[in-house]
Amino acid sequence: MSLLKGAAIVGQSGGPTAAINATLAGVISGVLSSDREAISELYGMRNGIDGLLEENLVSLTDIFSKNGKTDEDKLKLLCQTPAAALGSCRRKLPDPDKDPDFFRSIIEIFKRRGIRYFFYIGGNDSMDTVAKLTKYLKSCDYEMRCVGVPKTIDNDLVGTDHTPGFGSAAKYIACTMQEIVRDCSVYKIPAVTIVEIMGRDAGWLTASAALSGTENNGQGAPDLIYLPERTFDNDRFISDVKEVLEKKSAVVVAVSEGVRYKDGTYVGEGTQSGALDVFGHKYLAGTGKALEQLVKEKVGCKVRSVELNICQRCASHIASKTDIDESVQTGLSAVSSSVQGSTGVMISAVRTGNGDNYGIKFSAEEISKIANAISAVPDEFITDDNNYVTDACIDYLKPLICGECDIIYKGGMPVHLII
Amino acid sequence: MSLLKGAAIVGQSGGPTAAINATLAGVISGVLSSDREAISELYGMRNGIDGLLEENLVSLTDIFSKNGKTDEDKLKLLCQTPAAALGSCRRKLPDPDKDPDFFRSIIEIFKRRGIRYFFYIGGNDSMDTVAKLTKYLKSCDYEMRCVGVPKTIDNDLVGTDHTPGFGSAAKYIACTMQEIVRDCSVYKIPAVTIVEIMGRDAGWLTASAALSGTENNGQGAPDLIYLPERTFDNDRFISDVKEVLEKKSAVVVAVSEGVRYKDGTYVGEGTQSGALDVFGHKYLAGTGKALEQLVKEKVGCKVRSVELNICQRCASHIASKTDIDESVQTGLSAVSSSVQGSTGVMISAVRTGNGDNYGIKFSAEEISKIANAISAVPDEFITDDNNYVTDACIDYLKPLICGECDIIYKGGMPVHLII
Repeated sequence: MSLLKGAAIVGQSGGPTAAINATLAGVISGVLSSDREAISELYGMRNGIDGLLEENLVSLTDIFSKNGKTDEDKLKLLCQTPAAALGSCRRKLPDPDKDPDFFRSIIEIFKRRGIRYFFYIGGNDSMDTVAKLTKYLKSCDYEMRCVGVPKTIDNDLVGTDHTPGFGSAAKYIACTMQEIVRDCSVYKIPAVTIVEIMGRDAGWLTASAALSGTENNGQGAPDLIYLPERTFDNDRFISDVKEVLEKKSAVVVAVSEGVRYKDGTYVGEGTQSGALDVFGHKYLAGTGKALEQLVKEKVGCKVRSVELNICQRCASHIASKTDIDESVQTGLSAVSSSVQGSTGVMISAVRTGNGDNYGIKFSAEEISKIANAISAVPDEFITDDNNYVTDACIDYLKPLICGECDIIYKGGMPVHLII
Repeated sequence: MSLLKGAAIVGQSGGPTAAINATLAGVISGVLSSDREAISELYGMRNGIDGLLEENLVSLTDIFSKNGKTDEDKLKLLCQTPAAALGSCRRKLPDPDKDPDFFRSIIEIFKRRGIRYFFYIGGNDSMDTVAKLTKYLKSCDYEMRCVGVPKTIDNDLVGTDHTPGFGSAAKYIACTMQEIVRDCSVYKIPAVTIVEIMGRDAGWLTASAALSGTENNGQGAPDLIYLPERTFDNDRFISDVKEVLEKKSAVVVAVSEGVRYKDGTYVGEGTQSGALDVFGHKYLAGTGKALEQLVKEKVGCKVRSVELNICQRCASHIASKTDIDESVQTGLSAVSSSVQGSTGVMISAVRTGNGDNYGIKFSAEEISKIANAISAVPDEFITDDNNYVTDACIDYLKPLICGECDIIYKGGMPVHLII
C-alpha cells in the first residue's frame, strides 16, 4: 500500500458524551505525533457534516501545537471537557445512488483542500454517514480513506466489545444510583423511587445501574431493573414492586426509557407528543413519570420518579478513566489504521481478558456491516424473571467503569476547553 | 459552669445531604477525642426522634472505636457517604405546653440511660425540635444540654453565614450546570433547556448555578436565573427567553422549583396534586415541565426540561471539600460548646473573610430565634431585571464550593459506610 499524502478532516456527530472529546484528542494527538509525511494538516468540521458543507472548518493542528510541539496541556483539558468541542449535528446523508450530487459537492471541497483522510466520530447514525461516503468514493476517481470512530453512551454498536463514552455514562449511572439508593433508605415509610435511564433500543445503560451494588453486600443496588430487550408488563411490574415492598420499605427501580408493551408502544409514549427525530426515532421521555402514576394507582404508597436525563451523557467530572484512556486510544488507532491503508472501516475494541486481566486491543471492522445495526443486551445477561441482570452482565460491565480521571479544577469547578 | 457528666445522643433529621454524615463524624470525633470525663458514651438514634421514642439506638462510641482509639478510616468513609447514616424522619414535635406527656416520656428515656447531651443535626424543622425540647427542659428538674447542629442544602437557616450541606449541593449544581450548558451548545438549532433546581422558599441553590460561568468568560453559565424571592411572570419570562434567542441558539434557564406567580400559586402547582407534607409545605415538582410547555406554546422552538431532583442533595462524589471540612468542624464545635455549657443553641458559622481570605469561625446562637425562620437571598444578590444574580452573590457563593474531597473508590465506585 503506497503512502497517501494529504490533509485530514475530523468531525463529531450525534449526541454528546463525556468521552467524545477524548477521542478527538486521540485523533489530534495521532496526527501531531506522527512524522506528518502522510497527514500534513488536520481540519475540524464545526457541527459535523453541516460544517463541512459550509466549509466552517478550524485547523486543529494549529490550535493544538505550541512552539512546534503538541500542546499536551490543552489536549488534557480537551479530554476532560464533555459534549462535542467541535459541535455536532444530526444530519442524515442521502443515499449516494439517489443523490450523487450531494456527495460530488463534498468531494469538491476535499479536492480543493487536499483532504485525503476523513474521520467521523459518532454513533450508529454517524457510521451510516461514513458507510455512505465510502460507498460513493468507490464510484469516484478521488482516493480517500474514511474511518468511523465509534462513540455512543448507548453501547449499541455491533462489531465492537463496547463503545467509547459508554463506560463514563455507566460510571455516572452506577455512582448516582448508589447515592439515590442511600438517599431513599433514610426514611422508614414505604416508598418507591423509579429512576429512568437513557437507552431507546438497548438496555446497556440501565443494566449499569446494577454496578451500584458491587460493594456493601448489594446495599447500594436498585431492587428491580427493566430493560427494553424484554416486553414490559404493567401487572408483572406491580407484582414485582409489591414483592420487594414486603421485604423492605425503600424500593428503587431502574428502568430504561425505551421499555415497550407487548403491542410495541412505549411505556412513556402516553406522556409524550409522539414526535419523531430526523432519523425517524420516536422522541421519548416520561417512562418514569408513567410508572410513577401506575404505582400511585396500584400500590398507593409514596412514589417519585427521577429522570437522569442529559446529565448521564455529559458528566465528565465522574468519567471512567478506563473509558477516557480507551477513547484516546481509539482516536490514535483511527489515525494509524488509516495511514496504513484502512478505509470504509470502524475502529473496534476486542476484549482480550476479563476481571483483573481486563484489556482490549483494536481492530478495524468493515463499516457497512456496522451501520444501522443494533447491539442489544444478550439473553444471558438478563435474569429469567426479566427484572434484573445476571452476574455475567456485571462481570462484563465492571471493568468499563474502573479508574478515576485526575480532573483539573479551578475555583471548585472542572476546567473545560472551548475551541 | 460545673462539668455535666453523662451520655450523649445524636440524631439526624430532615432531607438527606452529602454532608450530614460529615457533621455526624464531627460529633463522634468530638466525643471520642475528648477525655470522656464529660461525655462517657455517644448513642445514635435510628431515624431521628422516631428511633429515640422506640429506643432504637446504637452505640457510636463502640462502632467508631478500634483498639481503644478512634477508627479514623471508618470516620473518613462516613464523611464520604451521602444521606443520613443513622436514618432520618420528618416528625414534627407537639407544643410542650399542649402535650407535656410527650416530652415527659422522652425525658424518662434520657434519665434511664443517663443521657445529658442531645445533638440534633438537621434543618429548619429540626431546629424546631431542639427549641421545643429546650423549652420543655426549662420546666423540668432534669439538667440537659441541647444543641442544634445545622444541616440543609437549602441554606435557608437564619443566624448563620451558610449551612453545612449547602456548599456540596451548590458545587454539584454548578458543575452539572456547566456540563449541561456544554451539552446544549453542540447543536446550532434554537433550543431552550430549563433546569429545575431545588429550593422551596429560598433561591440559594438556584443562584449557585451562576457559579458555572466563573471560567471561560461565562461560557458555562446559564442565560437566565429565576429565584423564588421574585414574583414569576410568564410574559416576562417568555420575553427574556426570546431576547436571549436573538443572540444565541442554545438558551439555558435555571429555575427554582419554588417560583410563584403574583397570586401566590406555584408555577409548578398545575402539574401536581397539591399534596402537603407533614409540616404543611406544598409538595412541589414540575416547575420545569410547566415552563417547558409554556415555551413550546409561546416560542415554538425545541425545548426540554431537566429536573436535578434528589441527585443534587446526595451527590457526595462531587462534594465540596470546604463544605465537608466545615461540616466536620460544626459537629466538633457542637460537642465542645455543649460541654462548655451551651444549651438551647444552634452552632452557627460567622464568615471572617472573603475571596482568598475566606474563613469562618463558629458561634452558638439562641435556637428559639432560628427555628421556623427563613433566610432568603437578599435584594443585593438579585439583578434589577430579576432574571440573574449579581457579582456580590457570586462572591458570597464561590468560596463555599472550593476544593475537592479525596474520595476512596473501589472497583470504580465510591465506598460508602453503612452503620
